[in-house]
Amino acid sequence: MTDEPLLGDVFGEVVRDALAVQIGTGRRPLAGGRLPRPVIEIIERDDGLINGAPAAHYLAGPEDWQPYDHRAVARVRGATLDIGVGAGRIALLLQERGVPVTGLDTSPGALAVSRRRGVRDLVHGTVDAHVPDGRRYDTFLLLGNNLGLLEGRDRAPALLAALAALARPGAQVIAQGTDPYGTSDPVHTGYHQRNRQRGRLGGQLRLRLRYRELRTPWFDYLVCSPGELATLVDGTRWTLDDVDDRDAPYYLATLRLTG
Amino acid sequence: MTDEPLLGDVFGEVVRDALAVQIGTGRRPLAGGRLPRPVIEIIERDDGLINGAPAAHYLAGPEDWQPYDHRAVARVRGATLDIGVGAGRIALLLQERGVPVTGLDTSPGALAVSRRRGVRDLVHGTVDAHVPDGRRYDTFLLLGNNLGLLEGRDRAPALLAALAALARPGAQVIAQGTDPYGTSDPVHTGYHQRNRQRGRLGGQLRLRLRYRELRTPWFDYLVCSPGELATLVDGTRWTLDDVDDRDAPYYLATLRLTG
Repeated sequence: MTDEPLLGDVFGEVVRDALAVQIGTGRRPLAGGRLPRPVIEIIERDDGLINGAPAAHYLAGPEDWQPYDHRAVARVRGATLDIGVGAGRIALLLQERGVPVTGLDTSPGALAVSRRRGVRDLVHGTVDAHVPDGRRYDTFLLLGNNLGLLEGRDRAPALLAALAALARPGAQVIAQGTDPYGTSDPVHTGYHQRNRQRGRLGGQLRLRLRYRELRTPWFDYLVCSPGELATLVDGTRWTLDDVDDRDAPYYLATLRLTG
Repeated sequence: MTDEPLLGDVFGEVVRDALAVQIGTGRRPLAGGRLPRPVIEIIERDDGLINGAPAAHYLAGPEDWQPYDHRAVARVRGATLDIGVGAGRIALLLQERGVPVTGLDTSPGALAVSRRRGVRDLVHGTVDAHVPDGRRYDTFLLLGNNLGLLEGRDRAPALLAALAALARPGAQVIAQGTDPYGTSDPVHTGYHQRNRQRGRLGGQLRLRLRYRELRTPWFDYLVCSPGELATLVDGTRWTLDDVDDRDAPYYLATLRLTG
């Protein structure tokens, strides 16, 4: 009886509407056609768990960032690829500081928002698809929990290899992750256990995003401990150089190119 | 591959967590186990539309209410049944003003929150189930869009009959609704049209609520125009006495017991 939502650029619509709410013009979600309401990004997990998260943080200025974002930015040097540039909050600060930064995203809507907000150098696509473009970088940023793009044991080596192919000698990856194993919530610990029983990493989430009438396909997104990350990095051209977990369970991992 | 969420007291969990966030103690939803995050109630429509709405408004004090809520409260007189008392925001103000108010809700979690916040007279169940209890009322409140409990052409006469059975002579119903037909958004106008083609009222929404691992069954919730309301009331023991649409598309309908 019920319809499946449509496939679409969920994240792009979310940040586009969040921008419209922030600046007060353009199509905005309205309650009953009158009161503007906050844009909420919805995340479904394949065990039926669902979560709504206000999207305004994608547009937040540095004064509203978490401390680890500032420490990540302080580690940037050289030509920088901001992977999952989103609405451009990180890229805009780097630009302002004179860092040569390129924003990469698979979402056309997010790229349009980043462009509108002033990010100058933007590329549409995946890390892998960007390799043949010939651009090379000193720093790769995976902020906003985007360490999750490692997905799991299958995808991580390929993503790390693509990053190595895009890297200049001595390049670094600065990735923000979250250690998922501090919780005692059975909804999460049970999920981790079932994942492991199926040969997956405990925090290898299977997710889809939803917004209004749209959905993404289901995709893997990795929430892993620093120990698991070390294992994933082992045997690649990267070494895990540093883990800053001053804001645990959140952490910043710095990988360095060897070989 | 993906699991269906579990049936449960979604609304009760939502207001319980919203209270925990507001008072800063008890189980609270945490981002990554540390940062408290706002409680978001998720509403799915059967065409795949999904919406997240922050739940804090269920606990809002009168200073944060919409103007029509204040005008609804000003119309109250005599023994009052607050139908869908929720977290008790309306009942608490009425109590403070010395109005004899009873809060009715089908959600045990909502009743627990209302009790904890100080609402003294609470009843668990539906309007229909409350009739044999022998209590009788002068005012029935259907606020927070709860005119929607009329559901549609099938349910409305039965609900209005149950209210009449609970009514003292001269009783009134004060119901807040939203006229859904001001929008030109095709997601909504298309839904209205498909509803009508199936013999339903245009704004007869088929919804379910979700929160974390829980869902409700699918249920009908009516968003109708004052004209449609007049048709639904016609032939019952109630007359549509007044429609206050000063905050259109929101309106307050007052029904009065005749016969």
